[in-house]
Amino acid sequence: MVLMFSLQAIAQEDLKSTYSHYVDKQGNITLPQDYRRNWTFLGSYQVKSSNGKGWDTHNVYIQPEAVKAFRENGKFPDGAVLVKDVNSTQSEPLTTGLAYYSSDLQFTFMMVKDAEGRFPKNEAWAEGWGWALFKPGIAKSETENWKGSGLNNCFGCHLPAKNNDWVYTQGYQQVLQK
Amino acid sequence: MVLMFSLQAIAQEDLKSTYSHYVDKQGNITLPQDYRRNWTFLGSYQVKSSNGKGWDTHNVYIQPEAVKAFRENGKFPDGAVLVKDVNSTQSEPLTTGLAYYSSDLQFTFMMVKDAEGRFPKNEAWAEGWGWALFKPGIAKSETENWKGSGLNNCFGCHLPAKNNDWVYTQGYQQVLQK
Repeated sequence: MVLMFSLQAIAQEDLKSTYSHYVDKQGNITLPQDYRRNWTFLGSYQVKSSNGKGWDTHNVYIQPEAVKAFRENGKFPDGAVLVKDVNSTQSEPLTTGLAYYSSDLQFTFMMVKDAEGRFPKNEAWAEGWGWALFKPGIAKSETENWKGSGLNNCFGCHLPAKNNDWVYTQGYQQVLQK
Repeated sequence: MVLMFSLQAIAQEDLKSTYSHYVDKQGNITLPQDYRRNWTFLGSYQVKSSNGKGWDTHNVYIQPEAVKAFRENGKFPDGAVLVKDVNSTQSEPLTTGLAYYSSDLQFTFMMVKDAEGRFPKNEAWAEGWGWALFKPGIAKSETENWKGSGLNNCFGCHLPAKNNDWVYTQGYQQVLQK
């Protein structure tokens, strides 16, 4: 009982502490450490590479506590963080035929749910989310490249999901609908 | 400090307790609860469906503590559990082009690392692993369908990975090599 209580306390702390751990007072966004091991895998998409050659695999991660909240309320709670790795995709002939799997990380996107409109003057925050881009090995969002047209690059792909709080949840049903 | 200690205690307990929680005295294997939310996503493969139509997505999960051990020792520790969901794959035209994502669960495979040769008389245990198959919604392995030729169905696909402890780790490098 003591252990279970502690685990739950940690999980709840994780979600509530988004704005102390991953977002600073100016709204600058930092990538969480080791989210691939520690967080929940929400789902993946295979999409054509932007250069037209081959496929990219998008793997999306979220805090376990945010999954718990979504299952209860059907929406992403304040402080929910979605981390999306965009990976190159490799193929290899196996006994079952040609198999595809993620190889090199190209870059990482991150969305931080903000139900309170915390950063009205920061251009990386709009439509109820903070939006961030990271190159491999870089923990700080590339804010300089992000201003002005940067967010339009996000919205171009996410616009069809606007009425679904900007997230393509159709690929995440196995986790969100438990 | 107290919370961190407790979390680590839970994680270690998780790996050590494989043979009390997920495997009974006869070697019958039970599927863990809510592994998609609670465990680490190890990686995925897209392979041609066995009926030749479309693609299946194989999503593989493992205990967080087993990842920790693999990073330290380069091998799957005793008690490591790999859970593989075989999902149908759906496609949808999005603004970035045709996108693919997992839809219905077809069935789930599970491998349990046994470094001690615990069940020499149980046919579901061979080559250092226990092997199990589950249909959706069924937590007990289908042992009746598993005897005799059942394991050969596993080995047919896993044989090329025999010298790698039977696991295709090439698709899991982002997690295992941290």
